[in-house]
Amino acid sequence: MKRHNIQLNEAGELHHFLDVEGLKRELLVNILDAAESFTSVKAQQVKKVPLLRGKAIVNLFFEPSTRTRNTFELAAKRLSADTLNVNISTSATSKGETLLDMLNNLEAMHCDMFVVRHAQSGAAHFIAQHVAPHISVINAGDGSHAHPTQAMLDMFTIRRHKGAFADLKVAIVGDILHSRVARSQIHALTTLGVTEVRVIGPKTLIPDDTASLGVHIYHDIWEGLRDVDVVIMLRLQKERMSGALLPSEHEYFKLYGLSPEKLAIAKPDAIVMHPGPINRGVEISSEVADGPQSVILEQVSNGIAVRMAVMSILMGQTFGKEKGASE
Amino acid sequence: MKRHNIQLNEAGELHHFLDVEGLKRELLVNILDAAESFTSVKAQQVKKVPLLRGKAIVNLFFEPSTRTRNTFELAAKRLSADTLNVNISTSATSKGETLLDMLNNLEAMHCDMFVVRHAQSGAAHFIAQHVAPHISVINAGDGSHAHPTQAMLDMFTIRRHKGAFADLKVAIVGDILHSRVARSQIHALTTLGVTEVRVIGPKTLIPDDTASLGVHIYHDIWEGLRDVDVVIMLRLQKERMSGALLPSEHEYFKLYGLSPEKLAIAKPDAIVMHPGPINRGVEISSEVADGPQSVILEQVSNGIAVRMAVMSILMGQTFGKEKGASE
Amino acid sequence: MKRHNIQLNEAGELHHFLDVEGLKRELLVNILDAAESFTSVKAQQVKKVPLLRGKAIVNLFFEPSTRTRNTFELAAKRLSADTLNVNISTSATSKGETLLDMLNNLEAMHCDMFVVRHAQSGAAHFIAQHVAPHISVINAGDGSHAHPTQAMLDMFTIRRHKGAFADLKVAIVGDILHSRVARSQIHALTTLGVTEVRVIGPKTLIPDDTASLGVHIYHDIWEGLRDVDVVIMLRLQKERMSGALLPSEHEYFKLYGLSPEKLAIAKPDAIVMHPGPINRGVEISSEVADGPQSVILEQVSNGIAVRMAVMSILMGQTFGKEKGASE
Repeated sequence: MKRHNIQLNEAGELHHFLDVEGLKRELLVNILDAAESFTSVKAQQVKKVPLLRGKAIVNLFFEPSTRTRNTFELAAKRLSADTLNVNISTSATSKGETLLDMLNNLEAMHCDMFVVRHAQSGAAHFIAQHVAPHISVINAGDGSHAHPTQAMLDMFTIRRHKGAFADLKVAIVGDILHSRVARSQIHALTTLGVTEVRVIGPKTLIPDDTASLGVHIYHDIWEGLRDVDVVIMLRLQKERMSGALLPSEHEYFKLYGLSPEKLAIAKPDAIVMHPGPINRGVEISSEVADGPQSVILEQVSNGIAVRMAVMSILMGQTFGKEKGASE
Repeated sequence: MKRHNIQLNEAGELHHFLDVEGLKRELLVNILDAAESFTSVKAQQVKKVPLLRGKAIVNLFFEPSTRTRNTFELAAKRLSADTLNVNISTSATSKGETLLDMLNNLEAMHCDMFVVRHAQSGAAHFIAQHVAPHISVINAGDGSHAHPTQAMLDMFTIRRHKGAFADLKVAIVGDILHSRVARSQIHALTTLGVTEVRVIGPKTLIPDDTASLGVHIYHDIWEGLRDVDVVIMLRLQKERMSGALLPSEHEYFKLYGLSPEKLAIAKPDAIVMHPGPINRGVEISSEVADGPQSVILEQVSNGIAVRMAVMSILMGQTFGKEKGASE
Repeated sequence: MKRHNIQLNEAGELHHFLDVEGLKRELLVNILDAAESFTSVKAQQVKKVPLLRGKAIVNLFFEPSTRTRNTFELAAKRLSADTLNVNISTSATSKGETLLDMLNNLEAMHCDMFVVRHAQSGAAHFIAQHVAPHISVINAGDGSHAHPTQAMLDMFTIRRHKGAFADLKVAIVGDILHSRVARSQIHALTTLGVTEVRVIGPKTLIPDDTASLGVHIYHDIWEGLRDVDVVIMLRLQKERMSGALLPSEHEYFKLYGLSPEKLAIAKPDAIVMHPGPINRGVEISSEVADGPQSVILEQVSNGIAVRMAVMSILMGQTFGKEKGASE
């Protein structure tokens, strides 16, 4: 599909990172391997590498975010890039400038990468379709569509704990319908060869076409968690609670919240993941979130290495390789 | 006039950059030449030079701006300076501190340069009159008075396309009355020796004393654009439309908006400029803005090099020259 | 008391800097000496040292502040650290995340230091009690409790002007009751061996237990200022004026505002200090604030060196010493 080719340059290398869907396993493994090389950076005395020195990376956040923006900014700084935070609400778009004019202007300032978060699905693709050829775009979350760097840091965390993907059983629990994270995770897990991906949630929160993604659907969490190696809890957007889609928070926790009892259904060495920020007592109990099987904070930590990996791959600058050098 | 001498140090070198008016041609040419030396920086592998390493540059924006603030911040970072964005609305002035006390405090923190934007004409001059001798001030736009770095990046763009200034015919079209950009452009063009500067606009938007600046006034754009080499369109502040000064947007475009038909009156190789952000269909048609004669995005791009040039000249740090070294 | 030990590591070295109270004189002198070594940095051509290169320092300001945040940010940049400004109001806490979850996430991003300002007394202690062992916390002001870096820059300024502390008479004038600055100053002054610390203010603004801190209380400023070497004026929070605690601003200035006449009671070479921002004509007259005995702007300037000192001591990185190198 043409929609995905936009992520690759003519040599088949990643130029944008918009969506896990449609990318080959090899490219995903490349990201995980590059991230592995960066985990040593954080341990060394000075946590910086000069790979992206002189590059200008623009954070274009049309939707508020602390965690994601901070990890992208820290990742960029550790690669020695210059960062620019563009506050959209105070930008010239409020003077009637179109989004494309704003992008063209940022391009003309010789920026090298846009990290985009937007409430609308497809926004990062739209931007990637319109930027100049030398600019790379990273999708940092668009509507309920995709959040590929989150999915890749989750894959990185799983690989660190479980090694090979092939024999794993992974369950994703919660509001699949509205979750860009779940969508990207499903594509990443299946591409990386996970045998069995399960999604667990109430009927109102699982889209009708979910089965076509090659996953197994469970509405009963006690059944769905049986023998899984990895439990991925999704954040429950509290603003959905007011509608007809969900019962009360208390009721939701009783049915789908991860308690020690429910976790006991999974394999004894199962790991528990969550993209954060967590709603304690809604989708996950504090006992589990802070317990020995939780790797939630490791995910945040791995987010830096994975984003450093994606940024340097897009810029063609990874350890021991330099895009263009041999071209 | 003493008001302009404040920009120069005792050696006659630029110490502040507040206004093009009153500066000698040689100083303006110096800025253009220094900017030329920085255009190679953006092309090289690493876009940074260490000229201002350890200098602290404060963005003091009392008026919102994305484009101008971003280009100053990027220019400073490419010179390896540290930047500080002072958010005026949350600053201590809201605790009843005076502006001068705030400036004194920033000085005491050993900041080296203030980049000032303010809604009031004269604000940057006022600040320059009161800062400590080691601090340089750049006017990034004050009221309807001056915007000298914008004018210089326009001159740089013209020189790159047209070479010598002497034989050019340049037209500035639109709301001259409220435009700090136009005022600075007129001074820069006449100082650099442009033969014929024309201003074009409705009577209500051209100040009475404009002719005294040595320009030709046209109210009929079809007449004013005849045979010009450069067309500079001004942004129409939409908030002026509500008053009695202007007809409707549609009417304005019909009379003064730059359409392909009107542009055909100019020389065939005329370039079209605009300081941005543009109002498509108000002062300029999309066909012209995105057309082959438009250099609007080049202007943005040149803005980085010109601001790097101004910053390093004020700090006495240009390639091959170091202020104080020989004194 | 255990409450203070939290600031020290097992080797008795500073690990957090939360409060002057309970710290030994030697540790305070260490900070002053380190700050002395940094005052040369600001004078040298390039004002940067690479001591904290690769460290990530997070500004966590729950309360607005320009001056303090700017000096911490500049100090961090001059030490070559990366800085991250976390805007609390837009952070995930607004999505229902707890403060501790937010801190844990920042920790997981491998941040090294939190600079915390909070309206509630004890907030920085609370955070220090809960962060991971590798993270240092600096209290940049918590409620009416403590503001230790402000107190230390004041001590540094006094030492530069007066040399030894032992024989000094120091007066602190104003709203002692609500002042975190005063509280930290009193502890610093007495720890450093100042003979006579006086506090001067109306009964309503001096807490009942003040005498137990080893200071002398004066309600008559004409008496309290007699023969002092140092006069420290406190900022009057104008929002207190509306209550019953204070008369009008005009009345306050007449009684406790520092005028040239009142200053004449002090020693002829007494210095005048103020943490800023100043209320001209309320707690201090412009004549005094801008006069020859005022060292108010020197305080701001010294704030950079003192904060660089504290940051590098906490990170175990001072000139000629490297924590962990010999361990």
